[in-house]
Amino acid sequence: MLPTAIVDRVVAAALTEDAPWGDLTSSALIPADAVAEGTLVAREGGVYAGQAVVEAAFRLSDPTTQVRHVVADGDRFDTGDTLAVVRGPARSVLLAERVALNFAQRMSGIATLTARYVSEVAHTGARIADTRKTTPGLRALERHAVVCGGGRNHRFSLSDAVLVKDNHLAVLTTTGRTVTQALREAIAALPHTAHVEVEVDRLDQIEPVLAAGVDTIMLDNFSLSDLRAGVRLVAGRATIDASGGVTLATVRAIAETGVDVISVGALTHSAPALDLGLDVAVHPGVTAP
Amino acid sequence: MLPTAIVDRVVAAALTEDAPWGDLTSSALIPADAVAEGTLVAREGGVYAGQAVVEAAFRLSDPTTQVRHVVADGDRFDTGDTLAVVRGPARSVLLAERVALNFAQRMSGIATLTARYVSEVAHTGARIADTRKTTPGLRALERHAVVCGGGRNHRFSLSDAVLVKDNHLAVLTTTGRTVTQALREAIAALPHTAHVEVEVDRLDQIEPVLAAGVDTIMLDNFSLSDLRAGVRLVAGRATIDASGGVTLATVRAIAETGVDVISVGALTHSAPALDLGLDVAVHPGVTAP
Amino acid sequence: MLPTAIVDRVVAAALTEDAPWGDLTSSALIPADAVAEGTLVAREGGVYAGQAVVEAAFRLSDPTTQVRHVVADGDRFDTGDTLAVVRGPARSVLLAERVALNFAQRMSGIATLTARYVSEVAHTGARIADTRKTTPGLRALERHAVVCGGGRNHRFSLSDAVLVKDNHLAVLTTTGRTVTQALREAIAALPHTAHVEVEVDRLDQIEPVLAAGVDTIMLDNFSLSDLRAGVRLVAGRATIDASGGVTLATVRAIAETGVDVISVGALTHSAPALDLGLDVAVHPGVTAP
Amino acid sequence: MLPTAIVDRVVAAALTEDAPWGDLTSSALIPADAVAEGTLVAREGGVYAGQAVVEAAFRLSDPTTQVRHVVADGDRFDTGDTLAVVRGPARSVLLAERVALNFAQRMSGIATLTARYVSEVAHTGARIADTRKTTPGLRALERHAVVCGGGRNHRFSLSDAVLVKDNHLAVLTTTGRTVTQALREAIAALPHTAHVEVEVDRLDQIEPVLAAGVDTIMLDNFSLSDLRAGVRLVAGRATIDASGGVTLATVRAIAETGVDVISVGALTHSAPALDLGLDVAVHPGVTAP
Amino acid sequence: MLPTAIVDRVVAAALTEDAPWGDLTSSALIPADAVAEGTLVAREGGVYAGQAVVEAAFRLSDPTTQVRHVVADGDRFDTGDTLAVVRGPARSVLLAERVALNFAQRMSGIATLTARYVSEVAHTGARIADTRKTTPGLRALERHAVVCGGGRNHRFSLSDAVLVKDNHLAVLTTTGRTVTQALREAIAALPHTAHVEVEVDRLDQIEPVLAAGVDTIMLDNFSLSDLRAGVRLVAGRATIDASGGVTLATVRAIAETGVDVISVGALTHSAPALDLGLDVAVHPGVTAP
Amino acid sequence: MLPTAIVDRVVAAALTEDAPWGDLTSSALIPADAVAEGTLVAREGGVYAGQAVVEAAFRLSDPTTQVRHVVADGDRFDTGDTLAVVRGPARSVLLAERVALNFAQRMSGIATLTARYVSEVAHTGARIADTRKTTPGLRALERHAVVCGGGRNHRFSLSDAVLVKDNHLAVLTTTGRTVTQALREAIAALPHTAHVEVEVDRLDQIEPVLAAGVDTIMLDNFSLSDLRAGVRLVAGRATIDASGGVTLATVRAIAETGVDVISVGALTHSAPALDLGLDVAVHPGVTAP
Repeated sequence: MLPTAIVDRVVAAALTEDAPWGDLTSSALIPADAVAEGTLVAREGGVYAGQAVVEAAFRLSDPTTQVRHVVADGDRFDTGDTLAVVRGPARSVLLAERVALNFAQRMSGIATLTARYVSEVAHTGARIADTRKTTPGLRALERHAVVCGGGRNHRFSLSDAVLVKDNHLAVLTTTGRTVTQALREAIAALPHTAHVEVEVDRLDQIEPVLAAGVDTIMLDNFSLSDLRAGVRLVAGRATIDASGGVTLATVRAIAETGVDVISVGALTHSAPALDLGLDVAVHPGVTAP
Repeated sequence: MLPTAIVDRVVAAALTEDAPWGDLTSSALIPADAVAEGTLVAREGGVYAGQAVVEAAFRLSDPTTQVRHVVADGDRFDTGDTLAVVRGPARSVLLAERVALNFAQRMSGIATLTARYVSEVAHTGARIADTRKTTPGLRALERHAVVCGGGRNHRFSLSDAVLVKDNHLAVLTTTGRTVTQALREAIAALPHTAHVEVEVDRLDQIEPVLAAGVDTIMLDNFSLSDLRAGVRLVAGRATIDASGGVTLATVRAIAETGVDVISVGALTHSAPALDLGLDVAVHPGVTAP
Repeated sequence: MLPTAIVDRVVAAALTEDAPWGDLTSSALIPADAVAEGTLVAREGGVYAGQAVVEAAFRLSDPTTQVRHVVADGDRFDTGDTLAVVRGPARSVLLAERVALNFAQRMSGIATLTARYVSEVAHTGARIADTRKTTPGLRALERHAVVCGGGRNHRFSLSDAVLVKDNHLAVLTTTGRTVTQALREAIAALPHTAHVEVEVDRLDQIEPVLAAGVDTIMLDNFSLSDLRAGVRLVAGRATIDASGGVTLATVRAIAETGVDVISVGALTHSAPALDLGLDVAVHPGVTAP
Repeated sequence: MLPTAIVDRVVAAALTEDAPWGDLTSSALIPADAVAEGTLVAREGGVYAGQAVVEAAFRLSDPTTQVRHVVADGDRFDTGDTLAVVRGPARSVLLAERVALNFAQRMSGIATLTARYVSEVAHTGARIADTRKTTPGLRALERHAVVCGGGRNHRFSLSDAVLVKDNHLAVLTTTGRTVTQALREAIAALPHTAHVEVEVDRLDQIEPVLAAGVDTIMLDNFSLSDLRAGVRLVAGRATIDASGGVTLATVRAIAETGVDVISVGALTHSAPALDLGLDVAVHPGVTAP
Repeated sequence: MLPTAIVDRVVAAALTEDAPWGDLTSSALIPADAVAEGTLVAREGGVYAGQAVVEAAFRLSDPTTQVRHVVADGDRFDTGDTLAVVRGPARSVLLAERVALNFAQRMSGIATLTARYVSEVAHTGARIADTRKTTPGLRALERHAVVCGGGRNHRFSLSDAVLVKDNHLAVLTTTGRTVTQALREAIAALPHTAHVEVEVDRLDQIEPVLAAGVDTIMLDNFSLSDLRAGVRLVAGRATIDASGGVTLATVRAIAETGVDVISVGALTHSAPALDLGLDVAVHPGVTAP
Repeated sequence: MLPTAIVDRVVAAALTEDAPWGDLTSSALIPADAVAEGTLVAREGGVYAGQAVVEAAFRLSDPTTQVRHVVADGDRFDTGDTLAVVRGPARSVLLAERVALNFAQRMSGIATLTARYVSEVAHTGARIADTRKTTPGLRALERHAVVCGGGRNHRFSLSDAVLVKDNHLAVLTTTGRTVTQALREAIAALPHTAHVEVEVDRLDQIEPVLAAGVDTIMLDNFSLSDLRAGVRLVAGRATIDASGGVTLATVRAIAETGVDVISVGALTHSAPALDLGLDVAVHPGVTAP
C-alpha cells in the first residue's frame, strides 16, 4: 500500500537525522563484529502500524540485518506481546533502533486511537476519516496508520479533491451570483474526476449547495439536533461529512445522527505515541572456525 | 536559533506534500487577483513556538505575502489572542494556511506541554530535558519548541554525545573487564569534547560508573526513594539525569529528590497539538487606478 | 495555478542539465559586463503556455534579468508575434535561452494541439481531457499546458482517483463474485472523496458496472455506433469518457455521439514542439559614469 | 552506456510523480498476493530504445519483479512483436506499467524517427546529429535514443563544447577586431580539449571563420546551392554541420550536398511517441503448500 | 564507523560529477562484455583510509563488481604494496576508477599526515586532534581519516559542542559582567551534554575562564614557555587544548609542555594526496559456452 | 563563470554540514540583535579565488548580510591585505565564517599554486592544465580556481572528451586490428564534437596514433629527451600534452621541450590551503530610535 520509494526516502532522512556522522557510543563501546538480537515488544496494548518503516529502518541501516514481523499492520496486540524480531550486526541494530521505534510508536499510536473511534461508531453506518492535520512530511505514513486502525482517508492534499470552505463561498458571492450559481460554474470548470465537497455552517446553507450538485456536504460544528435535521434535509442527495472538534466523548452521538463520514483531526494531530520498546541482547562477535 | 536553511527545507517539503500539483479548489473558485488577510488566533491558551516556520510557509508559498507576528517564540498567550497577521494574494495565503497551522499547532503544543512540566519543578533546581523520541524529520524544530517552553535540550543525535545504556554495558563486560575499566578505556578513546552519560538501573551500579569519571549518570526508572539515595551517593560527582516514564503527575516529586535533569520523552512524542486557527477574509481583486 | 516550488525545481534541474559547469562559449566570447535584450518571437501561430517557466528560467539563471510577457498563458498568437521580452546581463540571458525555449516550445505545442481538438468539438458538450501519458517529470507542466489550450485534466496519478481497467476486473471476478458485487465492495472500501471510473470494452459490460454505482464509465475503443448505443444505455447515470486512439480526424464524430469526456493521450505524448525563437541582441558593457 | 545512477534517479522521480502516495485502484481491487505477467508488445513497428529504463521502472517499483527483454536497444521490430516480458507481484507490475511505457514510447519514438532520417542519408557520408532541443530533465536518455536509431550526438550542453552563434560574433566584432582575430583570441583562451564550432549564415562568412582555425563550421539555414558552394569553399578544412529546419522531406538533398553532419532538432523536440503496450494478466495469489 | 548512507550519498554525487552522461571513451573503445581486473597499488608508503568509499565507488558504479581489500582502514603500507583488488565489467571498473582514487588518495593523505603528527608526540600524553578546517562536503570522511591515522576528533560542527572565541568573549563583557559571570550564565543556559571549551590568548585570561567551570581551555598561539606556564596554572582543572599554526616541526615541543590536546588544522586543510594507482587489465569478453 | 545554481548548491550543503541544527555557542553567547563586521584578511600572499562562494556563504546564511570584495578572482595580494569586508547580524556572520574560509582558503591555495606553475613556464608557449584529480563534489570550483591562477582546464569529466589510455589501447588491439585501425574506427563512431586525446608511453607509439588523426597526444612520464624527440616527431600534427608527476622543480624544463600543454594533478590534489582569516568585531545590538 505504501510505495517503497516513499518509505525509503522518509526513513533514510530519519536515519541521517539521528546519526549525521555516526554513532559515537557504539563506535567506542561495541566491537565491530558483535551481533545483536532485538525484540520489538508492546509495553501497552493497541493496534499495529509500521511494518514497512520498521523493516526499512533496519535494512537501510545495514542490508545484512534481518527483520521478521510476528504481527502485521492492522493487527491488535496486548501488553507484553512480541511484535517483531530483528537480528544483525550490533552496531547496525543500535543505529536503527530509535528511528524504528519513533516511527512505529507514532504510527501505532494513530492506529490505536483510530480504532477507538471506529469502535465507538461500529453500530452505525458512519466512517471515521482523517484530515490534512498531519505531521509535515509524514502524511502518507500517518494516513496509512489511520487505515490500519480501521479508519478511512479523506482527500490527501489540496491537489486531489475539492473542499469549498466559507472563505471560498464568501468570495464567490461577492460577484453577485448566488451560491448555487457560483458553485455550478466552478464545478463545470473542474476535472470530471474531482470530488466536490462543500462545507456549510448552518442548516439554511444546505439547500443552495445541494442544488449545485455537489458530491459531499460537510456539516461543520453542527449541534446534534442540527446534524439530525441536516441528515433529513440532505435525504441521500449527497454524502454527509460531519466535522469540527470531534472527540471520543462525542463521536458516538454524532454517528447516531445518521451522517456518513466523521472527520477527526485528532487522529493525527494529537494521538499520543504508543509505548513500544526494543529489547536488545548484544553478543560479542564469534570467530568463524 | 533555527538556521534558515533547515526551516526552509522542511517547510518547502511540507508545501509540496500538501499541494503536489496545485490547489484545485482555489484555482477553480478564487480569482487570481483576490487578496486575503489572515489572523492567526489562539483557540486555547499556551506558549508559542513556530515564528520562523509560519513566516517561511507564507514566504515560500509566495514571496509577496507579508507576515507580522504579534507574539514571539516563547511568549504565553490566552484563548482568543491574535498571534500573527498575514496579508497577500488569496491563493497564496490559502496554499500556505494548513502547512503553517500544522507546524505551529504541533510546535506550540510541545512548548505548552513543556511549560507545564517546567512549572511543576520551578521551585527546584531540576531542568526538564527532551529526548530523541521526536518526530522523524522534525527534530530540530521540536527541540526548538522545547526551549520555547522553558525546557532544555538533551543530546541531538547518536553523533554528538555518548549515552551508554545497559546493552552497551553488558557487552563491555563480556570481555572480563570491570565496568569501571571498560568505561575508562572507552572514554579515553572518545573525542575530548564528547560528553559521557551512563544509564544505570540500580543503586549498586552507580559507584563503578562514577569511578570511571563520567560527566552525567542517568538513573533510569528509579523509585523516589532510590532517586534520593542516588543523589546522596553521587554527591555532586556527576550531573544526575532522571528518566523513565516521567509524567506531569510524577515530575514534581522526582524533581524534589534533588536530581539535576529530568528527561521526558512525552514532551515530543505525545504532546497534543495546540488549537490554533487562521481566520481568513478574502477580498476580490482591486484594480489599480 | 502552477505552484512556484514545482516550477522552480523543474527549471533549476533543466538549467543544471544544460550547463553543468558553465557556458564555455559565453565565458570565452562575451564580456562579463555585456548586456542583452531578447525577444521571444513566434515562428508559427498557436496558443501560449509557459509564462511561469520562461520567467523562472531567466530569474534562476540570474535574478537581475527582467522578463516582461506580452501574451499570457492561454492567449492565441500569430506567426511573427512577440510573446515576451527579456533584458539582462548577456551571459545570463544566453545561459537561460535554450532552457526557456525548450519548455515554452513543448508546452505551447501541447496547448496548440489541445486547442485544435477543443475546436473540433466546440459545438458539442464534450470535453477534451489529458491522460497519464505525459513526459516523466513534467506532468504538472504538461497538464497546465492542456488547460491553457482549453482542455481539461483527467486524474493526475494513480493516487488521486480510481480507474478500473480490464486487468482489475478480471482478477476481481476470479473470486466468484459478479462484477457488480466486486465493484460495490471495492467502492465501499475507498475514501469517500475517490472518484471511481471504470473502463469497459463492450456494451454488455456497461449495465453491471453502472449497477455498482460508479461515477464515470470509460468506453474504450468503441465504434461510433457502439458509443451512441452506450450513451443511450448510460442515460445520464454516469459521466461517459471515450478513449482509445482518438485523433484529430476522429474526435469530432466521437464528440457528436454525446459522450461527456474524450481522453486523448496524443495531447501530451505526441504534440510536436511549437516553433518559437529568442532573438537576442548583445551590447558590450557600458561603463557607469 | 547510460550510467545506472542517472537512469535510476530519473525513473525514481517518475514513479513518485505517478503514484505520490500509492495506487488507489490496486490497493482497493488487487489482492496483495496476486501475481502478474506482462508482455511489452509493439502496436506499431519501429526501433527500440529504453531497455535500461524499463528494467529500472519495474526494479525500483519492487526488486522482486523480473524483466526479460526479447529485443535490445537499437533493434528493429514489427507490429505485434513482443519486446519484453515481466513477472512479479501484480500491484508492483501495475505501479510501474505507465512509467515504463511513458519512457519506452518516447525513447523508441525518437529512435524510430532518427532511423528514418538515417535511412534517408545512408547513401551519403552525412551523419544525422541531435541538438540541445531535448525534453528538460531527459537529455541523457533522449540522446541515447538517438544513438539507438543510428544517429549521432552533438555537444551535450553549454559546458562541453563551443558553438559560436551570430550573437556571439556580433558582440565580438564591436571591439573593432575582425571576426578572424576575435575568434583566434577566443580559441586561444579555451581549454585545448574544447571542440570549436562556429555558425555562419552566409557564404562570405566562411573564409574569415576558417582562417581562425575552427574545428567545425555550421551552415545555418543555407539553400541547397549555398550548401554545395559551402562544401566546395571549406574543402575539407573543417567539419561541415548543416542545420536549420531540416525535415524528412529535405534531409536527403541536404546530405547529397556533401556536408558531414546534419543537425536535426526535430529528432527530440517533435518525435511522436511510438505505440507500445503492456498486456497484463493478473492471477490471484497462490498459497504455498 | 562511517554510516553507509553518508558514504553512498557522497560517492554517488562524485560518480555523477565525473560522468554526468556516461564515459565517452569506454563507450567507444571498450566492448560491453569486456572484463577488467584492477589492483589498487601504493606508489608511496603511508596509512590507509578509504575502504568504505572505494567499495562504494565500484558498487554504485555497478553492483556486479567485486572489491576485496588486502589492507584495512588504519593499516600501514609500503611503496608497491597491493591495497585492494577489484574485478568486474571493464566499463564499470573504469567508470569508478578516478572517483575511487580521488577519495582514497585524499583520505590516505590525511591519515598518513596525521600518523606523522601522532608519531611525533607518542612519548607524551598529548592527543592530535582535527579541526573544522575540512573540505566542504567531506567532513565526516576526513574526520574518519584522521582517526585512521591515530588522531582524534574535535567537535564536528557548530551544533555539537561549544567553543567560545575572543569575539564571543568581547561581546559578552560589553554588558558590564566579568568574563567569569558571563561564562557562568551562558553555561547554565546550555544543554547539560554540551562540552564547553573556551579559547584564551593570554595567561591572565586563564583564571577567570576556569573560575566559570569550563571543560576545556584552548591556549591559542601561546609560546612554549607560556604553554608550560598555562599547564601549571590550569593544574588539571580543565582539559588543555593547544592550537594555532601547529606544524610537524613544532608539534613535539608543544606536546612536551604537557598539554592534553593539540588541534592541527593542517591535518585536513593541507594534507597532500597520497600517491595511489589502479593498475587495470582489460580482457575482451568471453562468450559463455 | 561559475553558474549561481552550482555555487549555491555546494555552499548550502557546506553550511548545513557545519551547523546541522544551529550554532550552540552563538545561541548561548551572542545577543540576537548584535551586529558584526568582518574583514577577510590575507595572512600570506597569493592569488585570490572564491569571490562567488564567499558571497554565497554569507548570503545563504542570512540575506541581510552585506559582502563587499576589495579584490576580484585572479587578483594577487600580499600578506596583510584586506580581501573583502562583511557586515550583518553577528550570529549570521559567525555562522558563515568557517564555511567561507574553508572554500576561500582551498580555492586560493589552488589559484596560488597554479600561478607558481604558470610563472615557471611563462617564457614558453606551454599551458598549465588541471586534471580530474579534484576533490569529489568541488570540481567546478577547483577548475575555476585553476583559471584564476592563470591555468587552463583539461576535460571536465569522462563525458565531455575522449582520453584513450593504455588500458583502452590494450583491449582495442586484442581484436587483431592495429592501433591505427582501431583508433580510426573508434573516432568515426564518436560525436563530431568529441576532442580525442590519446596517451602514449613510448616514442614508437606516437606515429601509429597520429596516423589515426587524433587531436591531442599525451606523452605520459616521458624523459626530457624523449619529450624533445616527441615534439620533433609530432611536428605540429597534434597538440602535445605532457603529463606524469610534474612538479614545480620539473615543470620549467618540461615546458622548454616545446610541448603545448602540461597536465599537473598536484594543482588540485595537493595544493595546501592558503592562510586567510576573518577578523570579526561584534557589537551589541543598537535599539532603533
